[in-house]
Amino acid sequence: MRRRRKKGADEKLLSYENYVIKNNIELLKGKWKKRFNNENPIHAEFGTGRGKFITTLAKQNPDINYIAMEIKEEVLLKAVEKAAEDNLSNILFVWGDVSNILDYFDKGELDRVFVNFCDPWPKKRWAKRRLTHSNFLEMYKTILKENGELHFKTDNEKLFEFSLNEIASNNWLLKNISLDLANSDYTENVTTEYEDKFMSQGIKIFRCEAEKRN
Amino acid sequence: MRRRRKKGADEKLLSYENYVIKNNIELLKGKWKKRFNNENPIHAEFGTGRGKFITTLAKQNPDINYIAMEIKEEVLLKAVEKAAEDNLSNILFVWGDVSNILDYFDKGELDRVFVNFCDPWPKKRWAKRRLTHSNFLEMYKTILKENGELHFKTDNEKLFEFSLNEIASNNWLLKNISLDLANSDYTENVTTEYEDKFMSQGIKIFRCEAEKRN
Repeated sequence: MRRRRKKGADEKLLSYENYVIKNNIELLKGKWKKRFNNENPIHAEFGTGRGKFITTLAKQNPDINYIAMEIKEEVLLKAVEKAAEDNLSNILFVWGDVSNILDYFDKGELDRVFVNFCDPWPKKRWAKRRLTHSNFLEMYKTILKENGELHFKTDNEKLFEFSLNEIASNNWLLKNISLDLANSDYTENVTTEYEDKFMSQGIKIFRCEAEKRN
Repeated sequence: MRRRRKKGADEKLLSYENYVIKNNIELLKGKWKKRFNNENPIHAEFGTGRGKFITTLAKQNPDINYIAMEIKEEVLLKAVEKAAEDNLSNILFVWGDVSNILDYFDKGELDRVFVNFCDPWPKKRWAKRRLTHSNFLEMYKTILKENGELHFKTDNEKLFEFSLNEIASNNWLLKNISLDLANSDYTENVTTEYEDKFMSQGIKIFRCEAEKRN
């Protein structure tokens, strides 16, 4: 279901026509490398928010293509503006719903998936909406190439616990699990807007990587 | 290396001759079921401390045999006394070193291994001494039967983080990971003496299970 939108953000967003894909996203299925016009690996962030994380990575890694997906248009607009400011050419923004990724991406089309600070959906009856529920993990497996990776961060302990169990039972190879990212050995961390706020408040960040196994 | 002992505890311990195995532990390798005189599964706790955990389990589960291993004799004595008081017949106490388990147990001889609140050995150069280091995990795999399980608890966040990563990379199937056992869905918890103390102080307990995969 599409949320109610502010008309101003809509129009602004669509004016970035080189960056933003909203209509007929399905037409790009299997053709993302063609759209980027190179054979570089593709990393996607599902729920990209204001985009600090993915635009920073895009700047750091010109040889990787990035796809930033977000359903809230006002928020996505902030992300697009960051990319436009830096004139980045290795990033695209998809104004879409993570539930539909099998319509957007072909089997094995992605090299890596990022999920950062997604909604914890704390009530048990909402578990299927969590982006690390096994139903989503199965979709990530489908669109990831062999040995492709999921990188996941959250400040929510219960969500992290749930996610570790889902990921392990879904047969991914867990790696680089951090129970307190600020006090870990992981030095390559790129933060999100949320994360900066949480870290400045001393809130613990949890992180893990998972490699697709079959 | 054997630690310095108090002579009194030594003698007392060895007076429980039906319970305590100290000399020639190797002679029981491959023959533990014979020693228990039945075909019941065998669960072993490595580093059993004062024995509340394993003697409680032994009382609850008469159809499972328990082996409690501990290197500190004064502490082991407390555990043995608990079992003797209840006249338990499905538990044995091994006054031995976890480093030697390949000498004590045959391939696939155990059904489950418990490691509870082991020494975190916090410095990096001590990592190999941690009972969840991959070298130990490999030994557990050897002496566990197919699909045998390791159950691990600690109050030490860094040790738990280390352990999850070791267990995952050593290709076990992680299950029932709890980042805060007191606030988890796991209702069958049997506590250790340490754990009671920690929980009463509001200290978080971490727990996981891992199934041997190959």
